Amino acid sequence: MATEIERKFLVLGTPWASLPKGELMRQGYLTASKQKVVRVRIEGDAAMLTIKGATQGISRGEWEYAIPVKDAQELLELCDQPLIEKYRYRIPFDNMLWELDVFIGANQGLVVAEIELESEHQVFAKPDWIGAEVSDDARYLNSNLQRQPYSTW
Amino acid sequence: MATEIERKFLVLGTPWASLPKGELMRQGYLTASKQKVVRVRIEGDAAMLTIKGATQGISRGEWEYAIPVKDAQELLELCDQPLIEKYRYRIPFDNMLWELDVFIGANQGLVVAEIELESEHQVFAKPDWIGAEVSDDARYLNSNLQRQPYSTW
Repeated sequence: MATEIERKFLVLGTPWASLPKGELMRQGYLTASKQKVVRVRIEGDAAMLTIKGATQGISRGEWEYAIPVKDAQELLELCDQPLIEKYRYRIPFDNMLWELDVFIGANQGLVVAEIELESEHQVFAKPDWIGAEVSDDARYLNSNLQRQPYSTW
Repeated sequence: MATEIERKFLVLGTPWASLPKGELMRQGYLTASKQKVVRVRIEGDAAMLTIKGATQGISRGEWEYAIPVKDAQELLELCDQPLIEKYRYRIPFDNMLWELDVFIGANQGLVVAEIELESEHQVFAKPDWIGAEVSDDARYLNSNLQRQPYSTW
């Protein structure tokens, strides 16, 4: 088990506008609750099956397996619809890597930035386009965005 | 995707009594419904993560991935409790392989035999210890035995 520790922020402006197009991600959930999530994701020519355990603060146990893209395409059909679709931009800043997700589809208009940390209290510098923190707001969990997309808020 | 086609039968007598002890299987479900199942299984020193699609007659889509046993031990803790535990015996008969599951724990007393087929209408010979067919009885699905164990019937 890996432990995923991440913080999530809203984004000011359109810092991705000058970057090469992000990678399209399509993901769905075979199950999703506070206690456990089973996610299928296709990103470019790679696909992953990921299980996440219960969220504890900003940490969550995670088990991830690479699977064939063809399998993932089939598994996405088993997932609750519609899928989550977003373009991911990876933006280095001060020796850290920010992941900026620009959602499309039912979550069009939503943009969030995430940073993965080594520990919960790790200190890091923020680019000037980082807005309010939403790490503790469950609405922004992708598994919740699947059920209650941004367009319905 | 593989397609799993199998038929399931009750067992007469104790045909496993004279065989070497079967392999202990421990399995649990991250989610389980008619539409989809995500199963974690440890058998001996191997472990699998298996996704099954909707049952159609005696057929079901199946995607299966080998995972580290240590991961499976952790994932079983995320599964609904109690786990399914059973000893599996593999018994060749007339060029086919029967899988005989002798359940323990909450399903103690239940014994079923399964045969995996190439097609739904495949003809096969039955050993004389094969009893009534239960392929269409959803109570015997392992995912249902997890929720409504044999001891509660």
